[in-house]
Amino acid sequence: MRNLDEATITQAVLARNSSTADARLCEVMTSLVQHLHAFARDIKLTEEEWRSGIDFLEQVGKACSSDRQEFVLLSHTLGLSTLVLAQNDRKPSGCTEATAFDVPQIQNTTVYDLGADISARLHGAKGYMRGTIRDAKGNPVPSAAIQVSQAGDDLNNPVAIDTECALLQADQLGRYFFSTVVPQSQRVLDDGPVGTMLTALNRHAWRPAHLEFVISAPGYKRLVTQVFREGDPYLDSDAVFGVRSSLITHWALQPPGETPDGAVSSDPFYTLEFDFFLTKA
Amino acid sequence: MRNLDEATITQAVLARNSSTADARLCEVMTSLVQHLHAFARDIKLTEEEWRSGIDFLEQVGKACSSDRQEFVLLSHTLGLSTLVLAQNDRKPSGCTEATAFDVPQIQNTTVYDLGADISARLHGAKGYMRGTIRDAKGNPVPSAAIQVSQAGDDLNNPVAIDTECALLQADQLGRYFFSTVVPQSQRVLDDGPVGTMLTALNRHAWRPAHLEFVISAPGYKRLVTQVFREGDPYLDSDAVFGVRSSLITHWALQPPGETPDGAVSSDPFYTLEFDFFLTKA
Repeated sequence: MRNLDEATITQAVLARNSSTADARLCEVMTSLVQHLHAFARDIKLTEEEWRSGIDFLEQVGKACSSDRQEFVLLSHTLGLSTLVLAQNDRKPSGCTEATAFDVPQIQNTTVYDLGADISARLHGAKGYMRGTIRDAKGNPVPSAAIQVSQAGDDLNNPVAIDTECALLQADQLGRYFFSTVVPQSQRVLDDGPVGTMLTALNRHAWRPAHLEFVISAPGYKRLVTQVFREGDPYLDSDAVFGVRSSLITHWALQPPGETPDGAVSSDPFYTLEFDFFLTKA
Repeated sequence: MRNLDEATITQAVLARNSSTADARLCEVMTSLVQHLHAFARDIKLTEEEWRSGIDFLEQVGKACSSDRQEFVLLSHTLGLSTLVLAQNDRKPSGCTEATAFDVPQIQNTTVYDLGADISARLHGAKGYMRGTIRDAKGNPVPSAAIQVSQAGDDLNNPVAIDTECALLQADQLGRYFFSTVVPQSQRVLDDGPVGTMLTALNRHAWRPAHLEFVISAPGYKRLVTQVFREGDPYLDSDAVFGVRSSLITHWALQPPGETPDGAVSSDPFYTLEFDFFLTKA
């Protein structure tokens, strides 16, 4: 293996990698090297561009921390996450679609009683959400654990840092209900290298308003999904390509008066009903 | 752009990226997204594997520092660097081949007079190297700046950290000469994530013995190359795919006696003659 050039290098690398005993690793690396090299060949990648790419990846790595996952954001904004999710996590008919990875995040979880106001430090219009956790046939699933996270509502800096989330438990009849502030459009964290990339590509960094749910119950697959808000201006241009029609919901505006939790509001408020349908494990 | 799946996501991302005014960026990103997605589709990348990939890239990023370029090493070990070099830096017939990128490195540069011993803190068999810097037709190029770097010779840990290099200037007739220790096989820095990858692939981390040269003279292209040592056991399995036959040289063993610098050695020593042929700028 001497004198390798653009015509012979790919086969040489594949041959070198072929002695691993891990057949799947060999398969993954073979495809990776072939596509990486084909990319460099197709566009005739220059040394200067190669250096820019190396620098970019290094910056992405350095932007990662315990509460920031810049490579995950890169994957999201390049559509890779949606692709991987689609080819691995397609739900059976009648089940709620997934639209996010189950990425463990460092979050402060607060346990709430059913019916509680989980808005914590967020400000905005009051909203009441309720529904039932069900199986694919519509039968209630009792006592599911429901984790809800929501980005901040500061309109000057509505970035998508979900560092806090609320944990609720559905009742024996599968029902859940809570109040919070109605979600607003939010930007992905765009002050790092991925944000610079989006700007260079003339792309915005906005995601449509949503609440994120992680729902788990014994005997069912963990569901990680997002419930979007009808009317949001970014539903057709989500920066991370995650919107699904079945997950767009209508927060209905209600006049002042009695609220779903039995109190009386002197302001208008919003209500939303949404049932989740879990897939059997 | 809603309900994107593995069949539609690629086109959606390409469409989103297409409004940039930078035509080359658009071309690069189009190819990158197509190949990235094709890779994920071809091997049916799983969520777990996606997560491993993200973790790996994050580790590579975190291993980068002012004197360690883990993404460069990743590129080298995947053959990407050799490919990019081959398609951009092919030298005209008669000129010395390049086999490394001109990556700026944080190095301590020491200026030496011609004929000096540049081995500094290295230990090993004494070697004397000499030659002439020439143009493609063989005419001497006067007064070229010659930067030589060499990895450590500690056989227990011969890793390729070139943190020191020597700067010499050829004379008016293009001649250079210096002494150092004869280079030994060396490992790339394999105590990080790239080393872990090599181990998983059942690959060794060794590079054949070489000296690295960066040669520059007004009116000529800067030449970045490596001069390998004949007989090295890793010439056909260089961890970074960089060996070129034209750069393999014979360090000739000489009996004790007068050395090229006019001294007398009671030990055997080595000599090497090698001319470099520069390309016109």
